[in-house]
Amino acid sequence: MQSRKPSESTIIMTEIVLPNDTNTFGNLMGGRLMYWMDIAAALSAQKHCNAPVVTASVDNISFENPIKLGNAVHIEAKVTRAFNSSMEVHLSVWGEDLTQQFKYKSNEAYYTFVALDPNRKPRPVPELTPESEGEKRLFEGALRRRQIRLILGGKMKASDATELRALFIND
Amino acid sequence: MQSRKPSESTIIMTEIVLPNDTNTFGNLMGGRLMYWMDIAAALSAQKHCNAPVVTASVDNISFENPIKLGNAVHIEAKVTRAFNSSMEVHLSVWGEDLTQQFKYKSNEAYYTFVALDPNRKPRPVPELTPESEGEKRLFEGALRRRQIRLILGGKMKASDATELRALFIND
Amino acid sequence: MQSRKPSESTIIMTEIVLPNDTNTFGNLMGGRLMYWMDIAAALSAQKHCNAPVVTASVDNISFENPIKLGNAVHIEAKVTRAFNSSMEVHLSVWGEDLTQQFKYKSNEAYYTFVALDPNRKPRPVPELTPESEGEKRLFEGALRRRQIRLILGGKMKASDATELRALFIND
Amino acid sequence: MQSRKPSESTIIMTEIVLPNDTNTFGNLMGGRLMYWMDIAAALSAQKHCNAPVVTASVDNISFENPIKLGNAVHIEAKVTRAFNSSMEVHLSVWGEDLTQQFKYKSNEAYYTFVALDPNRKPRPVPELTPESEGEKRLFEGALRRRQIRLILGGKMKASDATELRALFIND
Amino acid sequence: MQSRKPSESTIIMTEIVLPNDTNTFGNLMGGRLMYWMDIAAALSAQKHCNAPVVTASVDNISFENPIKLGNAVHIEAKVTRAFNSSMEVHLSVWGEDLTQQFKYKSNEAYYTFVALDPNRKPRPVPELTPESEGEKRLFEGALRRRQIRLILGGKMKASDATELRALFIND
Amino acid sequence: MQSRKPSESTIIMTEIVLPNDTNTFGNLMGGRLMYWMDIAAALSAQKHCNAPVVTASVDNISFENPIKLGNAVHIEAKVTRAFNSSMEVHLSVWGEDLTQQFKYKSNEAYYTFVALDPNRKPRPVPELTPESEGEKRLFEGALRRRQIRLILGGKMKASDATELRALFIND
Repeated sequence: MQSRKPSESTIIMTEIVLPNDTNTFGNLMGGRLMYWMDIAAALSAQKHCNAPVVTASVDNISFENPIKLGNAVHIEAKVTRAFNSSMEVHLSVWGEDLTQQFKYKSNEAYYTFVALDPNRKPRPVPELTPESEGEKRLFEGALRRRQIRLILGGKMKASDATELRALFIND
Repeated sequence: MQSRKPSESTIIMTEIVLPNDTNTFGNLMGGRLMYWMDIAAALSAQKHCNAPVVTASVDNISFENPIKLGNAVHIEAKVTRAFNSSMEVHLSVWGEDLTQQFKYKSNEAYYTFVALDPNRKPRPVPELTPESEGEKRLFEGALRRRQIRLILGGKMKASDATELRALFIND
Repeated sequence: MQSRKPSESTIIMTEIVLPNDTNTFGNLMGGRLMYWMDIAAALSAQKHCNAPVVTASVDNISFENPIKLGNAVHIEAKVTRAFNSSMEVHLSVWGEDLTQQFKYKSNEAYYTFVALDPNRKPRPVPELTPESEGEKRLFEGALRRRQIRLILGGKMKASDATELRALFIND
Repeated sequence: MQSRKPSESTIIMTEIVLPNDTNTFGNLMGGRLMYWMDIAAALSAQKHCNAPVVTASVDNISFENPIKLGNAVHIEAKVTRAFNSSMEVHLSVWGEDLTQQFKYKSNEAYYTFVALDPNRKPRPVPELTPESEGEKRLFEGALRRRQIRLILGGKMKASDATELRALFIND
Repeated sequence: MQSRKPSESTIIMTEIVLPNDTNTFGNLMGGRLMYWMDIAAALSAQKHCNAPVVTASVDNISFENPIKLGNAVHIEAKVTRAFNSSMEVHLSVWGEDLTQQFKYKSNEAYYTFVALDPNRKPRPVPELTPESEGEKRLFEGALRRRQIRLILGGKMKASDATELRALFIND
Repeated sequence: MQSRKPSESTIIMTEIVLPNDTNTFGNLMGGRLMYWMDIAAALSAQKHCNAPVVTASVDNISFENPIKLGNAVHIEAKVTRAFNSSMEVHLSVWGEDLTQQFKYKSNEAYYTFVALDPNRKPRPVPELTPESEGEKRLFEGALRRRQIRLILGGKMKASDATELRALFIND
């Protein structure tokens, strides 16, 4: 399997906030946004591995700015790193008020997907080779985020998370 | 403001997985589930504080078992701890195959909400007083999870996260 | 087949009234509520019989109080009685204004479901054994409601409805 | 206010059964159909009274034949009688398999609506003058169905329901 | 295959404009209306040929009057002419404000469908025999509209479009 | 008002075909696609003029290849030319089978929008200055397409359509 570049798995999605997507303040509900992000990220992971994928996990998400009714929602997703049969996808989300030409960041997030074969078993995926500086930083950070995921999911002991440990001791 | 018990903010939601909620394997899409969880958690937070709320953040979620087309989805949400104007809500999600009497865990998660006043500024919320052993454990863990959220959101230095630090050094 | 208790088929569903669920007064449309009630009741009937079910009939429903945009909708469904291959499910529905801590009854209703085998023929379902006083009253009333259903559906002559007849003559 | 004819309030609605409208047998869910019927009936009542309306009650509905995925759903609604501020609407529903030229009855039903003024108080509606034989029968039956509604809703004693009483005693 | 009349393929669809169907002015979005029109027209084409159909093309549509939130949308579709395996369907769309008894035209349009056999190959459809004056005019105009479609789709040279040519030269 | 470039109004939208978007062949329904295209095109027109817009007309659309269930839908929209208060938007649509790395064209289309002021009257929009060769061709063709629209909408006589006339006479 040939290695892939992040640009090959980039997905750009644009949506508009309709009335049924909003809370009582007239702003996009967090859950609706996570639904769109899941679809954008799944398409990105599928572009990388050319196989069906399922959502394995979602990292911490902080919602910074509310996106208003009638505004555009811009979601950009691309794979940051591949691990055997799983892929981490980075998402960045902006809102845009088109009449006021005002574009603002809503959040950044990481979703992880697993590729499955027709028997629904995990299958290997191509490696990712980052190119730009930003892609390299995301690629390197992926290991640390993976340790956090494993610890928070109860699958790794904190003391074994070498990279994370350094953060707390040498900081 | 009088303190509230977790049982006062408990929300039970039951949904059924319909065709449009599924991926190509006929299983519930992760994003659709996060949408339902957001609504259940928001209702729980509103019950606690009797004010409108907005989603501030979502902690790491790992999806353990896929929930199948036609199965029931059970979501239970309750507030674990209140901090000034924010509330952490714990969610547990099970799938259930009703014809085979088979109930299985899908995931556990924590969503955080902020209560807003009519000018959309954060407003104070009642404290939470846990009662059962499980509620007390969730209450105590809330501080540690909050530190993780602040570090991951770039709002706290790892070296200042006293409770987390202990995990890495003494473990 | 072993008899079941009403508590074994209880389903609790919570929804929120979103903009697209409302009429021009900003209140939940009756049809949207009947849709949710149908899903809650079907899940309850499936829990009782562990087989797929289809809606056979719906009894008279009176809508008492409108449920407002942004309010929570609470639906509780449980089987009241089983007849060969059909089950009557009782539903009670409340609205709740979470910011004002005001909970109000919307309606009560009875839906009837038939269990089907894989050839789509009716199949026998377990009997129901009521436990509480309320459950016993619902169980006894089920016969009378069934006679009304049969008469209104043109499948029984009013003069054969012994239990109902008494209502009109001795009243 | 001038009296109206049933033909003036007739609404014809046609829908197609899409995947998300179906149960596990691939047939239209009862709740989804009641949702469409509510909209068709509300439009019919509004045509009769030229005012906003809300669903007051729904009579017993029996589902006779399942409507399949991809089939057309035909709903015809018209007002049968007006009572002060309320209107009874008769609905008949057929399914149609367009490739096999097979049209089949699904059910008949009665929905009742109340007209509201801008303060959300009931307001008077025009009388209905039936024309055809069928319309006259529906008009006459409306009194009897209203008594059933009032008794079933606990707003009338069975012994006061003169017309119904006759059914049970003289039959 | 026996010829069919336009009245045999007439479909009447009625919808209501709900909040999620509207743009920022509270009027029905053009795209939502084209979605409903596609379903009404597809049902009409299926009624004519008794086979599954797919949308082949849509002619120019001009939206004349906006349809408001809460108003009824009336769509009437009927086949105007059949060509081997394709059918042209004429649609007319009105909005109606039911409280003000005000009915207004939104637009007229032509959709073209192709009938497919189980291998997804085009299959012959019955001819159409127009009856009324209006139907005959639609039938005759269908040839000219077909030439426009072929030229605009790059499948015919303008100089071969005999009927259209006349319009520009002799006008 | 300063002139704008097409690149400033480019919108890229990516969607996935879910079960409820499909016809009986499991392919995306034409109407659903036209709904998404309308949203993408409206966002593009809003980006160009920084004002709310409404759909005025849609040109002929031919659907070339069906887009399958689970495939990605890519829509690219950009303004081709501005006329006083209206803007023509060009759309190109591809489907993509991500597991087979197969990308195919579905259709090309032109939607026209009008910008409105707060009183819902047409308001002037900035001019468009095309840059690339492709953009210049689209800009020039816009005049001809506008004449077709006016003739087909009955607002211009064919004999006055100078540019179109040439096509038929000199061809």
